[in-house]
Amino acid sequence: MDITSLESPCLLLDKAKLENNLTRMTAYLADRGVPLRLHVKTAKNINIVQMGLQGQPGGITVSTLKEAEYFLEHGISDITYAVGIAPGKLDHAAALVSKGADLTLLLDNMGQARALNAYNRVKGLKLKALIEIDVDGHRAGVKPDDPVLIDIGRSLGGALAGVLTHAGGSYDCRSVDAIRAIAAQERDLTIKAAERLRRDGLPCPVVSIGSTPTAAFGENFDGVTEVRAGVFVFQDLVQVGLGVCSLDDIAISVLGSVIGYQHEKNWLLADTGWTALSRDRGTAAQALDQGYGLVCDQEGKPYGDLIVRDVNQEHGIIADRHGRPIDFGQFPIGAMVRILPNHACATAAAHNRYHVVEDGRITEVWQRFNGW
Amino acid sequence: MDITSLESPCLLLDKAKLENNLTRMTAYLADRGVPLRLHVKTAKNINIVQMGLQGQPGGITVSTLKEAEYFLEHGISDITYAVGIAPGKLDHAAALVSKGADLTLLLDNMGQARALNAYNRVKGLKLKALIEIDVDGHRAGVKPDDPVLIDIGRSLGGALAGVLTHAGGSYDCRSVDAIRAIAAQERDLTIKAAERLRRDGLPCPVVSIGSTPTAAFGENFDGVTEVRAGVFVFQDLVQVGLGVCSLDDIAISVLGSVIGYQHEKNWLLADTGWTALSRDRGTAAQALDQGYGLVCDQEGKPYGDLIVRDVNQEHGIIADRHGRPIDFGQFPIGAMVRILPNHACATAAAHNRYHVVEDGRITEVWQRFNGW
Repeated sequence: MDITSLESPCLLLDKAKLENNLTRMTAYLADRGVPLRLHVKTAKNINIVQMGLQGQPGGITVSTLKEAEYFLEHGISDITYAVGIAPGKLDHAAALVSKGADLTLLLDNMGQARALNAYNRVKGLKLKALIEIDVDGHRAGVKPDDPVLIDIGRSLGGALAGVLTHAGGSYDCRSVDAIRAIAAQERDLTIKAAERLRRDGLPCPVVSIGSTPTAAFGENFDGVTEVRAGVFVFQDLVQVGLGVCSLDDIAISVLGSVIGYQHEKNWLLADTGWTALSRDRGTAAQALDQGYGLVCDQEGKPYGDLIVRDVNQEHGIIADRHGRPIDFGQFPIGAMVRILPNHACATAAAHNRYHVVEDGRITEVWQRFNGW
Repeated sequence: MDITSLESPCLLLDKAKLENNLTRMTAYLADRGVPLRLHVKTAKNINIVQMGLQGQPGGITVSTLKEAEYFLEHGISDITYAVGIAPGKLDHAAALVSKGADLTLLLDNMGQARALNAYNRVKGLKLKALIEIDVDGHRAGVKPDDPVLIDIGRSLGGALAGVLTHAGGSYDCRSVDAIRAIAAQERDLTIKAAERLRRDGLPCPVVSIGSTPTAAFGENFDGVTEVRAGVFVFQDLVQVGLGVCSLDDIAISVLGSVIGYQHEKNWLLADTGWTALSRDRGTAAQALDQGYGLVCDQEGKPYGDLIVRDVNQEHGIIADRHGRPIDFGQFPIGAMVRILPNHACATAAAHNRYHVVEDGRITEVWQRFNGW
């Protein structure tokens, strides 16, 4: 089936680029002797995740218990739920364990530890958890030298699975050297936390770190038992801006159709609104602001500086980033374009399926899901 | 069922507020003698739309052909698809007509008119279209005095259904007086376009205008045959900022749980990321920036200045908008909060169902959908 026979907007997935992204990351980490625990929040599809698990121990990271449920149903049982646990989700977590999941939870404070301990005691269960470590002030986690780390570890006792960090601060880096530095910091501080727990006589089998940028540029993984990353499967404009990949590596794009013009303003109008692209503006703070996405022809080749400068629900306004005139003759009504996304997770989340492209044709349709 | 027994995050819909929003808009327009053509892109659910159609002629506005399909299956056949038609969607539109839809399309240029005419000729159909009029330079449409308006009208001939405008510029207003002025401009310029077509001997039965702000404050609808609006069913923080409604009118909120803290930064962490709230920042340019949403207690009462200041995929960072200290004792781990949305359409689109709240309890679950 030809791309142009699809009804726009819809999500395209270039299979060769996907495979290349998976191979490169897997090989990079294998060379450094550390396994990948694929984060499945980006793809939320079993075909993609099975491709990503080749040559890996087989564990995955999820961002929702619905992901855990879906992948468990598809035969993957080693699952880390890498968002701090809310006590109200413990029943859901326990139900997954009863169905065979080897599920590991995450927490970073005594309130969560007490809730987990009480739940295990009352229900006679052994739900286990990692302690989240804050290595860069980005979001959640205990500082590696915070006394509460030991309090949480002691409180969990046998339910302690280890430590986990996500160096989300890597997304603020402005050079590859800065990413390398934050990758070293991520590893060093996570290991410091693990060693503090071990010195206190506590078990810390898992030392889990990761983000796509630090996984891509980390140099030393000694003492780390696994690396988590997810966005790299598709890559996106934010990763291009960080230097993690090139434009040609981006595996997903949104197919749209030209529906109108504002000639005086040098705008093209397309049927690619925020429902199709998301409202993610992850490149806004980068050196090259890509608006709501970079516009390519139907083969996926960028026009240069054409970006989606604004979005409404079902409309995208396309313009040259420097305000230069558009050659409207290139874009008759109905002409199809492909938009590269700022943030692959957000754009994929706007769709319920991938149209798999091989050699310029649609060969398969793969489903995906959202929700909790 | 008690709200706190729900697993967070999820979407709550306060039925009394919904009813009040519907009643007020319907009465306002009825008093001014103009029917409402409800825009269903906000709710995408039949229960809500049936409530909104009470006392109306029964026509709806859609933003996707999937909406048209769903509402046709639920017995609503008078449908205006208010996004400029892409030629690649004509087969889908024709299929809806063959199933009984009285479907009206929209276009604003000769390329679309030619494509529609050619399609009608080849297929032996009579698909009809409105011409979109640009009254405020906001997005799409032909200027009311542009010669091409007549060219398009003549080209369409019997397929011409009338004119339609959306005064999206009303969202940039900074006072109710400014909204009243743009509402008058919306009406006057749309009627001007209709009269130009009629003077040329062309039919122009439909004169359709609308946006929630201009529908709420328009004073004169003489010559207008229908008003379209959608967001008002739920209202949101953007509408509060515009003066269209009060905080207490907002009918949807996202239920979340507190999962952690960063005490030094005065942050609460909750399980309300962009997957639950959307990344809409519609209040960013308003006098009161609400971040990614205003935080309320589980009864829906705002804490005051607590907002979601940042979001990741499954995390929301809550802080005081002025950076003042948080009383962490008020927010034990697992405490539930409700977040009012910037933009009701975007936040609703992040969910596949509404948990209907009546007198503080969940009484029903209504499904919704996305996609095309």
